[in-house]
Amino acid sequence: MTVEFSEKLIDMGKQAKEAARFLRKATTLEKKKVLNLMADSIEENAEKIKQANYQDVLNARENGMAPAMLERLTLDDKRLKAMAEGLRKIAQLEDPLAQANKQWKNDNGLMITQRPVPLGVIGIIYESRPNVTADATGLCLKAGNVVLLRGGKEAIASNEAIVEALHMALEEVGFPKESVQLITNPDRQLVTQLMQMNDYVDCLIPRGGAGLIQNVVKNATVPVIETGVGNVHIYIHESADYETARDIVLNAKIQRPSVCNAVESLLVDQAFAERYLSSLGNALYDGNVELVGDEKVRKLIPFATVAHEEEYETEFLDLKLAIKVVANYDEAIQHIEKYSSGHSEAIITSDYQIAQDFLNDIDAAVVYVNASTRFTDGEVFGFGAEIGISTQKLHARGPMGLEALTSYKYTIEGSGQIRE
Amino acid sequence: MTVEFSEKLIDMGKQAKEAARFLRKATTLEKKKVLNLMADSIEENAEKIKQANYQDVLNARENGMAPAMLERLTLDDKRLKAMAEGLRKIAQLEDPLAQANKQWKNDNGLMITQRPVPLGVIGIIYESRPNVTADATGLCLKAGNVVLLRGGKEAIASNEAIVEALHMALEEVGFPKESVQLITNPDRQLVTQLMQMNDYVDCLIPRGGAGLIQNVVKNATVPVIETGVGNVHIYIHESADYETARDIVLNAKIQRPSVCNAVESLLVDQAFAERYLSSLGNALYDGNVELVGDEKVRKLIPFATVAHEEEYETEFLDLKLAIKVVANYDEAIQHIEKYSSGHSEAIITSDYQIAQDFLNDIDAAVVYVNASTRFTDGEVFGFGAEIGISTQKLHARGPMGLEALTSYKYTIEGSGQIRE
Repeated sequence: MTVEFSEKLIDMGKQAKEAARFLRKATTLEKKKVLNLMADSIEENAEKIKQANYQDVLNARENGMAPAMLERLTLDDKRLKAMAEGLRKIAQLEDPLAQANKQWKNDNGLMITQRPVPLGVIGIIYESRPNVTADATGLCLKAGNVVLLRGGKEAIASNEAIVEALHMALEEVGFPKESVQLITNPDRQLVTQLMQMNDYVDCLIPRGGAGLIQNVVKNATVPVIETGVGNVHIYIHESADYETARDIVLNAKIQRPSVCNAVESLLVDQAFAERYLSSLGNALYDGNVELVGDEKVRKLIPFATVAHEEEYETEFLDLKLAIKVVANYDEAIQHIEKYSSGHSEAIITSDYQIAQDFLNDIDAAVVYVNASTRFTDGEVFGFGAEIGISTQKLHARGPMGLEALTSYKYTIEGSGQIRE
Repeated sequence: MTVEFSEKLIDMGKQAKEAARFLRKATTLEKKKVLNLMADSIEENAEKIKQANYQDVLNARENGMAPAMLERLTLDDKRLKAMAEGLRKIAQLEDPLAQANKQWKNDNGLMITQRPVPLGVIGIIYESRPNVTADATGLCLKAGNVVLLRGGKEAIASNEAIVEALHMALEEVGFPKESVQLITNPDRQLVTQLMQMNDYVDCLIPRGGAGLIQNVVKNATVPVIETGVGNVHIYIHESADYETARDIVLNAKIQRPSVCNAVESLLVDQAFAERYLSSLGNALYDGNVELVGDEKVRKLIPFATVAHEEEYETEFLDLKLAIKVVANYDEAIQHIEKYSSGHSEAIITSDYQIAQDFLNDIDAAVVYVNASTRFTDGEVFGFGAEIGISTQKLHARGPMGLEALTSYKYTIEGSGQIRE
């Protein structure tokens, strides 16, 4: 893709690099202070932010934005409070740069240290969810990184108001304002340029739907951490305990259907299906879940409609579940291999060897035995916070905490050694 | 870039994915056995490989290949022996998949394990150096990965003969032949297609000159590990001991000038330059090093020619050194920040605080105090082997051993846990 070149964006990149030089040397205490001040500033500027957001919401409604998206765009007192509390929580987390990874003396007497360092400048490309502006900034900054933010154009006024509040905190402690920069020009060419500014951007993290993420993966020359899409399966092995299976499936589908770790497809061994699928179907029906299935499923669950290929491929993010009866373990594995997005996959079984096989066979970020897939989450893992869930294998996989926002460098301290 | 679509390459990708399913479950002993057999097979098929290589060399010479490149293309008994020994050495290394990274029980009683796993399918794009065929295959396989090899077209016959020998070993132990695949069609479109086969390739590692690497970075949609280019600086602080500085500079420039960790630019504090640069210039002259420098340098080293901007940007990979006199530490840092490729950077100093500052200030894979930059090397680091030196910050930085060829997954073992 050829890109219309913007000098302004190059300048932002240069200033970001400059700010990165400052940030990577900021102490833990300084970063903690600025994050707490950012939280205060969000609260102090709540009225201004709400006003700006009100304009965004009005415009979006006029332009016919869907209700679910309008809901995500809207900032009320509760959300602003959560934004501030989120920043305070990040402030309290351990500094991912504080501790050396490894240190050893090599054969030549060189002291080699692998030290964590910030990635540098991180580009965040996201949709019209203004809370991401504060969250992503908090996490990037805690790990010593500069952020270049490009949010959805429908949230521009909200994002500007939030970033203005964050800037006040940066200025109060003498951090460069350019540590947090927002691209406000809605021109889409700028996103492509951002994705190709290898001299100024160290890493891109897209946050949003499959379309946004694929656009970044396809067009970026800057390294990308691919996040998010979860076409999640649960496979009920014939040995599974019915109640365990039922509780896990209901939880994974119903507790919060709009998130990436919710289950989208259910695979059921023939023997289990014959005994229990009808009851399981009723339990899902009671939970208002729309069911689609193959012929065998529809014999056992008469109200299930026909599942097409397409439905096994879809991340519904809704109260909808695709079901398929499989002959055995191998057919289940093949189905998962074909349709998995590499996010989270689970088996329910009481068979020891089958459980081990599943853990080994499945190639996904998180592989479960006998637990709900809803646990794929940085908080649940104990990371304290999460910038996203990586579905790629390079750099970071699965829930990403602060560590995923760092790189490392080697320092070598010698006393005049030369190579023989 | 629009790509002419090749069904054949898609098939290779599918078979690679299939082979990856096999390889990720191969045991340490099985992998060790196949690597040792590969070494034997290279030796047993030495005549065939040399014959094929002879054809490549003849053709390349006819087509006017430069002598240095011809030298790299040529395989003799010594090189074949080294190839086999390299594979045996990799066989002996610790299996990077053997040991879990971490295991903990979370608040819900879930046992979470972060286990190393292979990256999957690795595409290696390289020039006409047939030894890379065996080296890269050995390292990838040891870490449980399938390799898709795309070497320079001048080495096709050699690479085919080598891969045939490797296939014999795979077959002998019942590993799928598709674990090691060579793209023999010289059409350049295929390289671009390979770089965009996100469904079948997990990672690309380009190995070669700056042009090849930039082509991959610009055109790949598959994640890339950028390797190699080293515009390496040594900065001599005014506090440096002369002999230490001289020995390090001579070693870093002369010991092996054609490699990426050799020094390319020398920055010298004014005070040091006035006292010692003339002697240092003579020492370099005695080592047959061609010198270019700014005006201040040329006053002290009359035989140095004029250094242009371009020369401070160039990785000479030759007995040539660009020198610049700087006013102080800050000017040195600014110069390095401007021209560094993020590979290796060194300071020679006896000042404690300056040494610490340099280690913190410089953003490169490896940062040295008082040692030759020639130590940036997987072997020297104790990694046992090296697939390349990463100059990016994502995934791996600096010398990459077997660990860089792995990812990880989380396994979660529960007893029916659901999320509240």
